[in-house]
Amino acid sequence: MILTVTLNTALDLTYRVPSLRPHASHRVREVIERPGGKGLNVARVLAALGHRVTVTGFTGGETGRAMRAGLVALDEGGLITDALVPTAGATRRTIAVVDAVTGDTTQLNEPGPLVSTAEWNALLDRYDALVPGAAAVALCGSLPPGVPVGAYARLVRTARSAGVPVLLDTSGEPLRRGVAARPDLVKPNAEELAELTGSHDPEQAVREVRRRGARSVIASLGPQGLLAVTPEGRWRAVPPGLVKGNPTGAGDSAVAGLLSALVEGVPWPVRLTRGVALSAATVRAPVAGEFDAAAYTAYLDRVRVTAEPV
Amino acid sequence: MILTVTLNTALDLTYRVPSLRPHASHRVREVIERPGGKGLNVARVLAALGHRVTVTGFTGGETGRAMRAGLVALDEGGLITDALVPTAGATRRTIAVVDAVTGDTTQLNEPGPLVSTAEWNALLDRYDALVPGAAAVALCGSLPPGVPVGAYARLVRTARSAGVPVLLDTSGEPLRRGVAARPDLVKPNAEELAELTGSHDPEQAVREVRRRGARSVIASLGPQGLLAVTPEGRWRAVPPGLVKGNPTGAGDSAVAGLLSALVEGVPWPVRLTRGVALSAATVRAPVAGEFDAAAYTAYLDRVRVTAEPV
Repeated sequence: MILTVTLNTALDLTYRVPSLRPHASHRVREVIERPGGKGLNVARVLAALGHRVTVTGFTGGETGRAMRAGLVALDEGGLITDALVPTAGATRRTIAVVDAVTGDTTQLNEPGPLVSTAEWNALLDRYDALVPGAAAVALCGSLPPGVPVGAYARLVRTARSAGVPVLLDTSGEPLRRGVAARPDLVKPNAEELAELTGSHDPEQAVREVRRRGARSVIASLGPQGLLAVTPEGRWRAVPPGLVKGNPTGAGDSAVAGLLSALVEGVPWPVRLTRGVALSAATVRAPVAGEFDAAAYTAYLDRVRVTAEPV
Repeated sequence: MILTVTLNTALDLTYRVPSLRPHASHRVREVIERPGGKGLNVARVLAALGHRVTVTGFTGGETGRAMRAGLVALDEGGLITDALVPTAGATRRTIAVVDAVTGDTTQLNEPGPLVSTAEWNALLDRYDALVPGAAAVALCGSLPPGVPVGAYARLVRTARSAGVPVLLDTSGEPLRRGVAARPDLVKPNAEELAELTGSHDPEQAVREVRRRGARSVIASLGPQGLLAVTPEGRWRAVPPGLVKGNPTGAGDSAVAGLLSALVEGVPWPVRLTRGVALSAATVRAPVAGEFDAAAYTAYLDRVRVTAEPV
């Protein structure tokens, strides 16, 4: 079982409108409702790859109920276990307003419920009980109001004490503190790297993140693919040419690819290939956050991985 | 008991954002969630005035559940009875994105669930059972997909057969067909009048609507107040000077004022005073759809009603 943690889960809504004009009234043509939050996206891709996954994090209110129902509905193989912890406040919504003509997206993100100390402690109890049974842990996304900024550092330490590999995918201060707790793997993008280290040179930034505590760093550089710097070596993995489409969820699919390959014990080049192929297949899929299974299989043969001198 | 019918109920969300920019990502600062749809707004104002109200219409999914919970939470006096009929599809959301700086609003309205024939028949059964016990009926708002366009005509005829006064507040073809069924009262605004009759002269349009079947017409003319043409006479009721604020829900408050006065059997000038005062007090309230109780009381003395020659 792989455990994914999503502290700021969401009910993701996509609205298709003819054209968004501020201060006008719009009839929404199409509404798509999906469970959201990075760790839930990772879990869904892991399940699609045939892995058993347990999801924890917070859920509350009618939005939380709808999110959980969606998680069950999308889990065709029955591989996802819902271990979410209830909150008094309601799960946030995110709304992506998609212009039906241009495809451009306007995003509205609710802040999320205020998590109480008792609720945070309940999450810690749940997490501590789940970690020993996990083959790997993924800690994903932003923190909702009320959760201490050092939350991920605490969760990383627990996983490390239990000897379970832990991947951290977040940003800002929670990432900075989490890195100091020495996670096995972090997967920052170029922007997160720059924010964390002050350097806009990915090479230099990755070195700095490892110096601060991350054992391995996989930098996701958008169309340039992944740069992996690990104790076992250093690689670049690039997708086959420019992949056009919607990048929403591509990073989460990369995390799922890396984690699934990690627990299968395959070497780094195979892990990176899977991460890049899944990420590209997600950009290609018509629905945001889904991946195109046929494209994934095709990409597996076409991702180029090159070892670089350490 | 007053019966209000809201076929296209909604969960109304208000998002406060610093400034809405198309194709950008926004953190929503504040989320307000309320039961919505015109007939539910009317019911809430009636209850605030001390009247027992029964609400019917459709409800479904987690959004419907949240809407019903909100209705109970806002009904401090316990005067509202929920007689909503379940649908397989989920109740729609409406989202008002309010610019925190300018106060301008961008509106996104979901279309609503597709209502099946069986669900529509269930609504008719519920309505037919409730009408004989009602002192008055209000039929409010748009029709969701699947409901026949002649829906309001059917509902008007039932109320008339039972001898229960019926008010119709809708627009477009449902209004046109509803008027032909001879409702006691319609409350169109200037735009609805023009759409229905083709005339932009409210006087002429009101005459035409009465000719087509409405017994009394109360035209709501925004800041110019109400123009009432009835078998008992003809009046104008105007608010005291320009009322500044948010007009959302002002028309629904006017309906509640007219209905409450109707069932109390007071004469037309008192009914119109109440409608205008509630409407103005709604514009003045900080939260959309609420009314300012102190302002309402003050306005009752300051609305001017003048009889006009028939």
